[in-house]
Amino acid sequence: MANPAAPELAERSPGATRTRLVTWQDPSPAATAGARLAGLDYMRALAAGELPPPPFAVLLRIAPVEVGEGRVVFEGEPGEEHYNPIGTVHGGYASTLLDSAIGCAVHTTLPAGHAYATQTLEAKFVRPITRETGAVRCEAQVLYRGGRQATGEARLWDVASNQLLAHGTGTCLIIS
Amino acid sequence: MANPAAPELAERSPGATRTRLVTWQDPSPAATAGARLAGLDYMRALAAGELPPPPFAVLLRIAPVEVGEGRVVFEGEPGEEHYNPIGTVHGGYASTLLDSAIGCAVHTTLPAGHAYATQTLEAKFVRPITRETGAVRCEAQVLYRGGRQATGEARLWDVASNQLLAHGTGTCLIIS
Amino acid sequence: MANPAAPELAERSPGATRTRLVTWQDPSPAATAGARLAGLDYMRALAAGELPPPPFAVLLRIAPVEVGEGRVVFEGEPGEEHYNPIGTVHGGYASTLLDSAIGCAVHTTLPAGHAYATQTLEAKFVRPITRETGAVRCEAQVLYRGGRQATGEARLWDVASNQLLAHGTGTCLIIS
Amino acid sequence: MANPAAPELAERSPGATRTRLVTWQDPSPAATAGARLAGLDYMRALAAGELPPPPFAVLLRIAPVEVGEGRVVFEGEPGEEHYNPIGTVHGGYASTLLDSAIGCAVHTTLPAGHAYATQTLEAKFVRPITRETGAVRCEAQVLYRGGRQATGEARLWDVASNQLLAHGTGTCLIIS
Repeated sequence: MANPAAPELAERSPGATRTRLVTWQDPSPAATAGARLAGLDYMRALAAGELPPPPFAVLLRIAPVEVGEGRVVFEGEPGEEHYNPIGTVHGGYASTLLDSAIGCAVHTTLPAGHAYATQTLEAKFVRPITRETGAVRCEAQVLYRGGRQATGEARLWDVASNQLLAHGTGTCLIIS
Repeated sequence: MANPAAPELAERSPGATRTRLVTWQDPSPAATAGARLAGLDYMRALAAGELPPPPFAVLLRIAPVEVGEGRVVFEGEPGEEHYNPIGTVHGGYASTLLDSAIGCAVHTTLPAGHAYATQTLEAKFVRPITRETGAVRCEAQVLYRGGRQATGEARLWDVASNQLLAHGTGTCLIIS
Repeated sequence: MANPAAPELAERSPGATRTRLVTWQDPSPAATAGARLAGLDYMRALAAGELPPPPFAVLLRIAPVEVGEGRVVFEGEPGEEHYNPIGTVHGGYASTLLDSAIGCAVHTTLPAGHAYATQTLEAKFVRPITRETGAVRCEAQVLYRGGRQATGEARLWDVASNQLLAHGTGTCLIIS
Repeated sequence: MANPAAPELAERSPGATRTRLVTWQDPSPAATAGARLAGLDYMRALAAGELPPPPFAVLLRIAPVEVGEGRVVFEGEPGEEHYNPIGTVHGGYASTLLDSAIGCAVHTTLPAGHAYATQTLEAKFVRPITRETGAVRCEAQVLYRGGRQATGEARLWDVASNQLLAHGTGTCLIIS
């Protein structure tokens, strides 16, 4: 493919060109450490900054800010670097927050040695997100936790206006 | 919130720290230009590199590679910077590809002066994506195009093995 | 097709054969009357039995039991006649309840002369429903009501055990 | 609840009252027999009428008409008894067809002794179904069949006009 990540953007339109230096850490050590912890302990360590944030969370400027059993809250700071081709923040930004919050909420219900895999995400986008939106807050809770599957739902809010931006549901496979 | 984008990662674990300089352009001029074009022409201009790629596409290393009326193919190069906390590429990466491909396929059906807004995405994740996966290919087609709504579906493939990684559907509001 | 509704069931296995006489009324007069009412008034008239129940509600033994602005509760009595080929009540029974409750909750937000069309339903089935389950209760609420679309969510409960059986979301087009 | 299945409809509006005598058989013997068969053999026996149709299929006048490995086609005859309160066939009718076809397509991939449980259905309704529609046809195929989950998609067509009426996806848990 023509690599969209390396066009000569700066040379073509220097006045409209922006850059961001993204710094992250190899995610493998944290994931390996996490596999040995109860999910609630792993999520708490991530939220407390005791483990490095996963790279995709760095790219999207999202992080867990509240963690309880079966419930996780994320916050995010969408910006211009998250824009789609039609002039707003990409729906994938909201999808990622909904997915992260539901998956992490399910994770908090797992004892050490158990794992989950996200099977589905159903996202609904109800108001546009722009670079003027500012902070967003995503609250997720587990609705069902069985031996083979778990389901949850999440809602994404505009922090300043307290308006709903998106909401969704997800299904996870429980692997024990 | 504690900003996850600016931890002192490099100081904490220099050996595991990676960086990427992301360069993009203000997406407003392209979006404004796009609003005056028929959707098919806009998508072709984006695929041909005649317009700068939207910023989120740069972050995710995704781009349209084939564009027809009611059908769009994207390719992507998932990498370590797209990892989630459990040791694989974040589901949001696949969601973004499915969403982009369906939305752009709907966009190709719009005459100049019309717009669309994505209402829903339903994503299914069937095989993990990792930094070893390499190139992925996402094929989307419109299944219904009415006066008020359009629907489509997309499938995401591992290019090397030709195995299905994810698939999904979406609904868009048509705004005329 | 071989019509599954008229096999010679009674002749083949008389001991296992059951019958139910279903009685309903032409739904057109009620729908026509409803189109002239505010949605909340129409739903209240249906819940109060002032209008005949829609035929599908008769077949499935479901009915609205609480109606408020943006919120509707249905109850249902699943039975053997709602069974699927694998020995439980068909998922379509729960889907119909979720869909009915979300659609009717959206309907309560419409002024007279407005209409809605259901675009999507995303249903999750978390516990089986059987002929031993007894009464079920489905609570729906509108989560977003805009000028062009509305979204809602619903949860289906086992009345006796208060356990969650299914849940889901839906999107409706608002037609004004 | 006020039982919606037994109002004094015939007495209230005799001119608008219709009845249908629904006849079905105890579904337990067929389900028990099915659990001992390979899924493909069970679905073929159902399609051939060698086993009594499940009761919900009788109520909805739906039946499998083509069965292959990973692919099933249903036909249905929606009628007035399937109407919702807003003057069309209930979305639950289409949801049930999509769900049946996807579930049965997954079932055809199971060896004897294995079972599945439907976890999710994502349905999209794109054109109304009425009592004038006539026969409908629902084609489903499995898109992914793994050891723990399977996914599929289905499309529902108006037989006379060959127009798409609804489409959807589903996820099933594989139980071995």
